[in-house]
Amino acid sequence: MNINWQDFFARRTERVTGSQIRQFFALTERPEVISFAGGFPDNEFFPREDLARTMASLVKEDARQALQYGPTEGIYELRVFLSGKMRQAGARCEIGNLIITNGSQQGIDLLSRVLVNPGDPVLVEEPAYIGGMGAIKSYGGVTNGIEMDEEGPRPESMVKTLEKLIARGLKPKFFYTVPNFQNPTGTTTSLERRIKILEIASRYDLLVVEDDPYGELAYDGTVPPSYYTLDREQRVVFLGSYSKVLIPGIRIGWMAGAETLLEKVILIKQTTDLCSSSIGQRLAYRLSHDGYVNRHIERLCDLYRQKRNGMLEAMQQYFPPSVKFSRPGGGFFTWVTFPDNYPTSRELLEMALERKVAFVHGIGFYSNGGGSHTARFSFSQPGLDDITTGIRIFGEMLWEIESELNKNRPAVNQ
Amino acid sequence: MNINWQDFFARRTERVTGSQIRQFFALTERPEVISFAGGFPDNEFFPREDLARTMASLVKEDARQALQYGPTEGIYELRVFLSGKMRQAGARCEIGNLIITNGSQQGIDLLSRVLVNPGDPVLVEEPAYIGGMGAIKSYGGVTNGIEMDEEGPRPESMVKTLEKLIARGLKPKFFYTVPNFQNPTGTTTSLERRIKILEIASRYDLLVVEDDPYGELAYDGTVPPSYYTLDREQRVVFLGSYSKVLIPGIRIGWMAGAETLLEKVILIKQTTDLCSSSIGQRLAYRLSHDGYVNRHIERLCDLYRQKRNGMLEAMQQYFPPSVKFSRPGGGFFTWVTFPDNYPTSRELLEMALERKVAFVHGIGFYSNGGGSHTARFSFSQPGLDDITTGIRIFGEMLWEIESELNKNRPAVNQ
Repeated sequence: MNINWQDFFARRTERVTGSQIRQFFALTERPEVISFAGGFPDNEFFPREDLARTMASLVKEDARQALQYGPTEGIYELRVFLSGKMRQAGARCEIGNLIITNGSQQGIDLLSRVLVNPGDPVLVEEPAYIGGMGAIKSYGGVTNGIEMDEEGPRPESMVKTLEKLIARGLKPKFFYTVPNFQNPTGTTTSLERRIKILEIASRYDLLVVEDDPYGELAYDGTVPPSYYTLDREQRVVFLGSYSKVLIPGIRIGWMAGAETLLEKVILIKQTTDLCSSSIGQRLAYRLSHDGYVNRHIERLCDLYRQKRNGMLEAMQQYFPPSVKFSRPGGGFFTWVTFPDNYPTSRELLEMALERKVAFVHGIGFYSNGGGSHTARFSFSQPGLDDITTGIRIFGEMLWEIESELNKNRPAVNQ
Repeated sequence: MNINWQDFFARRTERVTGSQIRQFFALTERPEVISFAGGFPDNEFFPREDLARTMASLVKEDARQALQYGPTEGIYELRVFLSGKMRQAGARCEIGNLIITNGSQQGIDLLSRVLVNPGDPVLVEEPAYIGGMGAIKSYGGVTNGIEMDEEGPRPESMVKTLEKLIARGLKPKFFYTVPNFQNPTGTTTSLERRIKILEIASRYDLLVVEDDPYGELAYDGTVPPSYYTLDREQRVVFLGSYSKVLIPGIRIGWMAGAETLLEKVILIKQTTDLCSSSIGQRLAYRLSHDGYVNRHIERLCDLYRQKRNGMLEAMQQYFPPSVKFSRPGGGFFTWVTFPDNYPTSRELLEMALERKVAFVHGIGFYSNGGGSHTARFSFSQPGLDDITTGIRIFGEMLWEIESELNKNRPAVNQ
């Protein structure tokens, strides 16, 4: 009998579509393209020699733990270290408040699985990280975008959205936010905003899921205290990651939150994969506990700061003044906004690709629609020269558009 | 405002409970207990030196790929190698038919997520692997046990169950099976049974999910061809794993199946964790492609065969003849059945623990109830001496029970 696969797929899969970012990975790998599309860390910044040495010694010395299955919640030493790190930042975090995940992506996936019923509204930033929204939607969550400005999510927008949902008999369970050097906008939420949003969360009995892969990659001084640190009600779940500050290839992140919640998450994680990579966890622990990762982060900040500066200087020099871009204090991304009379950013991308320059257009980051004239530019992967060259080429293209627009515009004094 | 966590948990989490096996991990780690409970591979059999050397060189030489994010479906070279391995076994398997997962546990989790609607019946073996059932149940699947005998799942039981479900308007989407050296019984499904079950699957439009972590650990000659190899309708999904034949600590397994199905699985996997560990995949590839893993499997078979023999010989010697046990041709487990007039295996376990011997009682492996007088004994972890000692101690306990039962029984000639 022939198989009709559509009869077999569960209803929840109808909501799952490929991330546009995934399609861009193909572009990123074409060597002739200068790509600002991917958000990967720079391969060249991986500390290969140190990793190789540490890996070899831990496989030999910690074989029992490094090669075997481990506890679902993560290896003890790494949980002790990371909960200590959270406490040093001023948070209340005992070992029972922290588990290890396969990157912070598994964190938001597990949380969505534990919290989201099909049809549940979930608050997200507008624009928001596509991978986070993907996890939420894959369990039937309906994302509701909260407007952003330079200080982060707008409290008025959040209250308005909450009231609207409540009027419809709906109650969102959490707000998903990337508060530091946000993907995609590069925005860092101000301390004042964090406090206000926590007040709103408390008033409306909302959890805050704080995804922070970039917070330590701060190029102009440190970021405000985390929501998790400011929280006094165990209402915040913090997701951390080694992917950007060490390497993604080990798939190690962590989740800090209320013990009652984590107990559920651990049960679910067990059916998902039994445990995270033991080798990856041992490596993360070995390189963290003696301060190596912190020293590596300092080096990374020096290196990525140059790239960030290179991109912003090139945009300043080569973009028409009508094109706006964010000035992130860290992380990997700047956010570009084109004038309304420009072609859409999707069209601009097609034109740019002909000139061998790539970026991600903004529409996919929006859950309420919009973003047609926005784009995410990542400076993490291309080299300094390519950054300048790519932005110059794209800037020249934008000036051509400008002059085309001016030609068609009736002169003011005519 | 205080958080009432019960208000936050999604309905699907109500079906998730801790595996009893997980609770036994704690016991396993108490050094004074001889434990036949855990199903981990033996730490001592991990090839540390070779792993350390390979790991160090791949981190240095393949840094770009080994340390970075990789494709969601897995790295190309490993997929080429594994699909070739499947073809060598006689299966139709192109690279598009194979993806990499975080162990085979993620395979059954992703499949359940893609296939199971809440309330859907799923056929499983009776008894069946707890972790597989846990994944199925966590998405709302209702497990229906198919009776097993020494040749594997009974076709009559499968047809009867299918007809019963169809009469109630229900249609199961798949049958989940561990055909080689099954966890928990050690049973290998005969070729004749595999063919019959595939015929039933075709007739009832059922998929077969074949989970095969143990098939290469064969101590008395090879196993029959896989369902995947016998299949002519792309109705079988094969789950493989490096956990038992190399190490679990890298969390690398694979899934082979119809491309239409895998495309959905890849989309879901992306929201789950972006990709599997790149380091783990590179390690698995490096050690597989030059035949190292195959040579290692030969060594493992020699080592585990001794343990298997040691356990069966000790059971033969020390158990009362009324206690039956399976004689697995490979894998990690033997299945013990106690007479009905014995205390339940749960009670026997409590008594055994007082004598510092542990195993897993059988109830948790049954989805239709039953199994109260069964137990799983694993020979993979304890050393040879401990196997003999532990089985002797437990056997002595069983003989005490026998004599107690005989004392209370009226003499036949009285």
